[in-house]
Order: sequence, then structure tokens, then C-alpha cells
Amino acid sequence: MDMDKVVVRFLEKRELKKPVMIVGLPGVGSIALLAAEHMISELKAKKFVEVYSEHLPARVFVDGDGVIRMVDNEFYYIKKGGYDLVVLTGDSQAQTQEGQYTMAEKIIEIARNMGVKRIITLGGYAVARLIEEPRIIGAGTSRKIVNEFRKYEVTFGEGEPGGGIVGASGLLLAIGKLKGIEGMCLMGETNGYIPDPFAAKKILQVLSNMFSLQMDYSALDEKAKQIESFTEQLKATSHRAKSDDTLRYIG
Amino acid sequence: MDMDKVVVRFLEKRELKKPVMIVGLPGVGSIALLAAEHMISELKAKKFVEVYSEHLPARVFVDGDGVIRMVDNEFYYIKKGGYDLVVLTGDSQAQTQEGQYTMAEKIIEIARNMGVKRIITLGGYAVARLIEEPRIIGAGTSRKIVNEFRKYEVTFGEGEPGGGIVGASGLLLAIGKLKGIEGMCLMGETNGYIPDPFAAKKILQVLSNMFSLQMDYSALDEKAKQIESFTEQLKATSHRAKSDDTLRYIG
Amino acid sequence: MDMDKVVVRFLEKRELKKPVMIVGLPGVGSIALLAAEHMISELKAKKFVEVYSEHLPARVFVDGDGVIRMVDNEFYYIKKGGYDLVVLTGDSQAQTQEGQYTMAEKIIEIARNMGVKRIITLGGYAVARLIEEPRIIGAGTSRKIVNEFRKYEVTFGEGEPGGGIVGASGLLLAIGKLKGIEGMCLMGETNGYIPDPFAAKKILQVLSNMFSLQMDYSALDEKAKQIESFTEQLKATSHRAKSDDTLRYIG
Amino acid sequence: MDMDKVVVRFLEKRELKKPVMIVGLPGVGSIALLAAEHMISELKAKKFVEVYSEHLPARVFVDGDGVIRMVDNEFYYIKKGGYDLVVLTGDSQAQTQEGQYTMAEKIIEIARNMGVKRIITLGGYAVARLIEEPRIIGAGTSRKIVNEFRKYEVTFGEGEPGGGIVGASGLLLAIGKLKGIEGMCLMGETNGYIPDPFAAKKILQVLSNMFSLQMDYSALDEKAKQIESFTEQLKATSHRAKSDDTLRYIG
Repeated sequence: MDMDKVVVRFLEKRELKKPVMIVGLPGVGSIALLAAEHMISELKAKKFVEVYSEHLPARVFVDGDGVIRMVDNEFYYIKKGGYDLVVLTGDSQAQTQEGQYTMAEKIIEIARNMGVKRIITLGGYAVARLIEEPRIIGAGTSRKIVNEFRKYEVTFGEGEPGGGIVGASGLLLAIGKLKGIEGMCLMGETNGYIPDPFAAKKILQVLSNMFSLQMDYSALDEKAKQIESFTEQLKATSHRAKSDDTLRYIG
Repeated sequence: MDMDKVVVRFLEKRELKKPVMIVGLPGVGSIALLAAEHMISELKAKKFVEVYSEHLPARVFVDGDGVIRMVDNEFYYIKKGGYDLVVLTGDSQAQTQEGQYTMAEKIIEIARNMGVKRIITLGGYAVARLIEEPRIIGAGTSRKIVNEFRKYEVTFGEGEPGGGIVGASGLLLAIGKLKGIEGMCLMGETNGYIPDPFAAKKILQVLSNMFSLQMDYSALDEKAKQIESFTEQLKATSHRAKSDDTLRYIG
Repeated sequence: MDMDKVVVRFLEKRELKKPVMIVGLPGVGSIALLAAEHMISELKAKKFVEVYSEHLPARVFVDGDGVIRMVDNEFYYIKKGGYDLVVLTGDSQAQTQEGQYTMAEKIIEIARNMGVKRIITLGGYAVARLIEEPRIIGAGTSRKIVNEFRKYEVTFGEGEPGGGIVGASGLLLAIGKLKGIEGMCLMGETNGYIPDPFAAKKILQVLSNMFSLQMDYSALDEKAKQIESFTEQLKATSHRAKSDDTLRYIG
Repeated sequence: MDMDKVVVRFLEKRELKKPVMIVGLPGVGSIALLAAEHMISELKAKKFVEVYSEHLPARVFVDGDGVIRMVDNEFYYIKKGGYDLVVLTGDSQAQTQEGQYTMAEKIIEIARNMGVKRIITLGGYAVARLIEEPRIIGAGTSRKIVNEFRKYEVTFGEGEPGGGIVGASGLLLAIGKLKGIEGMCLMGETNGYIPDPFAAKKILQVLSNMFSLQMDYSALDEKAKQIESFTEQLKATSHRAKSDDTLRYIG
């Protein structure tokens, strides 16, 4: 093992049938991470690969029993009828630009060895305006895949996302494309940087439709309610604070 | 392919006749970039090499059709009578000092393999004073090439540019010089950091004169007008803002 | 010698009997460092390995005679009856995330070559609330070692430490675990970032109990008194300063 | 040539007799740089090696003729009777900690190949108190060399410099020591970060005494006067500015 770049540890050697890889790593609004974790939990996905790297934070986590585990990225598989799903998630994206390239390339290498021909990366798309119903913005590796995804509730083009896609969601597609893997990025619209389970649910509904997945969303709905209630409290506190300030000035 | 450093992808293997390489990468006032893009568009230059690197931002762009492409540097060629031109442009320079060296060295290697014997890098030179007519400041790899360029509207020496040349424009020349390629940097004077199509036009006029190029400048003139109008508006808004503040204080 | 990564210099080739490695590097409250230095001094541990690295600060220290020495990490050994102890301490942890991984891996390699089967890393755990008696929080590489340590005054689980363990204390355990070395991190609770000799003493008492070590703590007690007296003075000065300010405003 | 790390270019292969290397790179108060440049100029030292590196800034300088040269470090030699002197100076130290180690190691390798057995690095030592006559503080690789230097006007020990020596001046000695080269750092006391030609002169006087060098110091004296006059003006302006402010408030 050489920690110098990226270490791949297989927990299980698993033959996969026409696997499609879905990537949900931490990012804007934690949308991708929430979606991936929900899929893993609801579809009882099984972890079979751990990826460690010097490009991830130098940190270990401690579980409820006091047992440590190193920060990593993890592959899970879900056995389906005609094809299998692979879900990639993790504690963190690479922490530097160079690390982003190195890890994306390694992950594409792993995916190719698994026989992955298509990658769907998930992400969040931060917009400043009020969102009634978050749209799912798409960006693909070719016109062909873009056209194929138009039949789902995915919006393309019209200059979105404006500044392109930063980080693993974009880079995995671009490097995959160079290696002959087609890909699509699905980004849920969100306001700012608090976790957005509602946008995660919207993305999962597209995936469910696409792959005929059976998922219950009550856990995500519950999280959404908790976050809403929490932000409401924050706003209230903030109003009170302002009132207090006003009083002080008046008094 | 190894993303570790720099990846070179040839779209076309092209024999070039005594090629001169012109480099216009993003930098001060976007002068070099504007000039390179204008040349490519006006002279119908053809892209034949793409360069990817971990030293460029970990970002992909999305086109109007929703199709992604990775941040890169690109070589274009223009077939001429006695000799050919190669234009190097791109989305970004390397993001770190070490990356600047690594990419410059790789680009010089590519240029040598193409048979390039002379490189002209373009750039901007930020000055604080009011510019009536931007001068083109030159810096070359030898007295010989400096003397040769004196016959064009290029200003040399007199302590300009003061702090030297930072980034790819200078480094490509210096590393090229070590490898036996002569070179010249042409820098358009500019005020500050907004795009300066007018300085880009001045540089292109020197190049047109030098290489007998036929270019129409109306697209650059139009951009110059747009930017002028935009900055005028900004100033007006800013004055209004100040007036408002004043009113508030007076009131 | 190649400074490129990590340089290991053996001062003495020493056969060790079933060595247990104890790691006390600079960190929160200097607890680990204070504990390691106290052990080395009290148990007359002997330095036998020096580790230099580009991942440590580019700095040399000058002793009272005007003689320099480079920043390093150092291994000491203590010969015991049934087994030996190895103490790792040093001037600094690696300065970058990538350096943390590289150095941790090298240190694990050295430890394995010494025959180390168990590592105990020491650390501080910063908490905001008032500490009457600092607890020792533990985190281990397996349930087995966690259970074994429950018989000492070590607290496990209950979501502590919250954000995991950052730096060498955690990484050495995680990389060691991948290499078949079991490990435990013992963290002393502390308030903020001033050196905390009292928490260091509490950790040493656990180690003394575990390894039947005979140590006198008067040097640590003395340091604790000095720091307490110093912080008292700081508070007093700070109060006076505030009073002075008040007087100035009033006057 | 490989710019990846450090590139060494010999302008002349020169046999040197028992060479002593003196290092004057940019640093605190520019003392080392001023001293090295003065030696080179006064003793008509001849440049014979250029060192380029990705660890130096990605910058080129332009001379009065408009000709570029890349940022570098440079070796000069001075032929003497019984032994030769080598002077190392340059535009910059390495810009990162890792670069400091890499360059220091390469420079020691070059020095060893030249037959260098002793290195004297120069530096500045910033102190907060008023300096009447700057002392020269020394730090050496062994008690032996420290004792040898006591016969010159060099102060040792007494906890100076407090935080050790940061950067190339210290690292070259430490890495040299590991490679069997003895060394000494001579640091001139200085106030703050403006160039201090007076402290540079004091260091040169120690070196002149040591190596029986004949140097005229009028150029350094002139620089010292210019800087003094400049700082006097700054103080005056600053006083005026304060008076103006006061007037404004009063008025």
C-alpha cells in the first residue's frame, strides 16, 4: 500500500452486470450526499470498496463504540434485474485542485475495471432567487446523452450552470469522457449552503423514474422539516436580536 | 493517459512549415486572450491540440446544448504562404507557481516537436496613469530579436515592465530560450483589470504588420464600445450612490 | 539521503522486545508533547532515531552553545522487563495534509520494522465548558482494544470527540490499522490552547497504571503552577486595562 | 533538462581550491543579499552556475535592453591564494517549505561536487529594541566551529536567535551537516524589514577579517545614507499627516 496518492481497498470482489455508477459526494447544499446516502439506506446497497487518499482530510472519525475509521470515499453496489447500480459517496472531496484530478482519475480507473459505461454525478446548483420547486439542471458528455435525458424532468442549456461545474461532479464526467465513459450531471437548484433534502428528493425522483427504483422518502421529508424548523428558529432569533438592538438605540 | 501532470491530446497530426507560435492566455486586461481569440476567429484557425492538466482549475464548462468540456489550453494552426502560425490560447493559466513551470515546460516541448523556432507571447501591462494610446512594450530573449522588433511599433527597455513579467508569458520565453527557441513578449498598456479590447487591437495591428495578416477589427471595436458603455454606467451609478449618501447625511 | 519526502537516521540499531509505541507530538494544549517529554525525562528514555522531512517546517533551532539542529521527529526507547516502550515525539507535526499522510505512513513503516504491534497516541481534546477534573477520552482501532482499555480511567463513545481526531494522532492509528497494528488514542480534556500540564499528568497516570511505570510528577505540577500563575496575572492585567479604559472615558 | 525540481546550468567548469561557500540570499533586512552583492562587485567574482527551479517565483526580469532572464540563484567564484571563495546569491529563496528543502538539498549537492567543506550563510536577525551598533549573532554546526568563530566579532548562544533560523540560511547548514559539511550562520541585528546596508557592512567586516579580503565600503555607506534619508522623509511626512488630521478635527 502506498498512501502517496490514492489507496483502493476491495472488501469484496464483485462481478457487476452493466453497472451504472451514481456519484453523490459532499458539495453545494449536501444534495448529492443526501441523495446518495438515502439511496444506500433505502435500497440496502452494500459497501464493497474503500478509497483512502492523502488528498482527503487528515482526519479519522470515531463511532459510538469509540472505534475509529479514516476519512474515505466508498463504493456501494445494488443488484438489479438487467443491470446493477454502483453508488459512490464519501466523507469529503479531494481538498486541492491537483487532488481533485488525481482522485477523479483513480475513480474512473476503478469504474472502468468494474465495467461501468455510464456515470451519473449528482450535485447542487446554488441560485440567488427564491425557489418554489427546484429544477434539476443537467449537463452531459455528449448531445446523444443530453437528448436521451430530455424525457425525464431535467432542464438543459440556457446558460446553466453559469460558471460551469466545479469539483468531482464535473471532473469525473470529463475524465470519464476521455476514457470512453458517457456521463450526466444532475444538479438540484438550491438557495445557499444549508443542507437541502428537498432538492435531494427531487433528484432521487428522477433517478427512481429512470431506474424503476422503489424508495420511501419519509426520512428525507423528516430531515427537510427539521431543517426548515431550525431555520425558522434562526430567523426568529435574528429578528428578536434586531428588535433588541432597535430598542437599545431608541432607549 | 496520466492526469498527474499534463495531458496532450492531438486532434490532428499536422505538418507545419516554419511555424511561429503566438500565445494568448488569460491575464492582465484579458488582452492576450482577446487578441488570440480574435486571430482564431478572423483567420479561421483550426484547433489541433488540447492540453489538460491538474494545474488548471478542476472545472468543466457547459455549452448551450448542455454538453460539458474540461478546462484546457488549446493549440490552433493557420496555414500561410512561406510559414505557418500556431496560436496557443486557453481557459486559464496554471494555478500554482510549480504548475506554471510544469505547464510551460510541456508547452515548449510540444512547440519544439512542431518545429517552432520562434514564440511571441502576448500580455497586458497594468499602469496607473491615464492612457491616451496604449503603447506595446516588448521584452525578448536576446538583443538580436529585440533589435529586429524595433522596426515595429514596439517600445523596449527604459525599465519597463518594472517588476518583470509574471506567469506564462515570461516563463514560456525563458524556458524556450534554454531550449534554443527565440522569443518575444508583446504587452499592451492597460488601466486596471477590466478587459481591454482596444489594447488587444493595438497588439494585433503589430502582428498584422509583421505577418501580413488580413483582419477586420469591428468585433473588437464593438466589444470596446460595450465595455466603455458599461463602465460609464457603473460610474454614473456610483455617483448616484454617492449623491444618495450625501442626501442622507444632509437630510 | 533524499530529503524529498522523509529521511530516517538511526543513531543506534536497537533490538526491542514486544515494543509498544507511545506518540506525543505537538497539538491541542501541548498535552501529548508534555506527556512524552515527561516520560522521556523521568524514565531516562534514550533517543535512537531521528526523522527529518520537507513536511516539517524549514527551520533550525540553536542551542545554548550556538549549535544548530534541524526540526525533526524523534524516537526514544525505554527498556522494561517483559516488553519495551518506544516514545515518538518531535518539534512539529507535518505542515500539510499530504505531509501528514506521508509522514504517518513512514512512521508506521519504521514502527513495523521495530516490531511494534500496538500504538498509543496521545492528544488533547478541547472543550468549551469548565473542566474540574479532565477526563481521558479514548478511541481505538477495534472494539477489542476499546474493551480492553475500559478497565483504565478512559471514557469511550457518547459522540466524543465530536469532529473526529485531526492530524497524526488519528492518522497513525488508521494507517497502522491498515497495516495490522492495533492502536488507541488517549485524549485529555482541556480548555483552549494554552499548554495544559495537568491534563498531561492525567494521561501519564493512565499509562503508569497500564505499564507499571514509576514517575515523579513534581516537574509537571510545577509547570502547571507556573501556567496558572501566568494566566492569573494575564486576567488581572486585563481587568486593570479595562478599568484604565473606563477611567479614561470617565475622565 | 527537467524543470520539475531544480535545474543546474554550468556556464563554466571551474576547478576550485579548498572552496569556502558564502551564501547571501534575500531575507530579513536584505542583509545577506546586500552583503553578497557587495562582495561580488568589490571582489570581481565571476558567475559560473545558474540554478532555476519551479520553487522560485514564475517570473522573468527584463534588463535595460529589453532582454529577459528567468528568476534564479547564482554561484560566483573568487580565486584567492590558498583557497577559493564561492558566493551563492539569487533573486529569491524557494517559495514553499517543501521547495526550501528541495533547493537546499540540491545546493548542498552542487557544493559537495565543487569540493566545498565549509559553508557560511548570511542573514538578518530582526530585534524590536533600538540598535546602536548591530551585533553579529552566530550559529554553527558544531561546538568546534562555534569556538573557532569566537575569535571574530561574533556573539553566540544566550538564547539567540530565539525562534531559531527560518529558511535557507539554517537549512543549508543543517543539510550540509548531515552530508559532512561544516557551517556557520552569521546574522546581523536589524530593526524591521527595510534594507539594512549598515548591518551588511558589519557582516562583511567579519568576513574580510576572516578571509583577508580587501573591500571598499563606500557603495554600502551610500546606500545606508539614502535609506536613512528616505526613512527620515517618511517620518516627517507621517508627522505632517498627523498634524493635518489634528487640524482637521480641531477646525
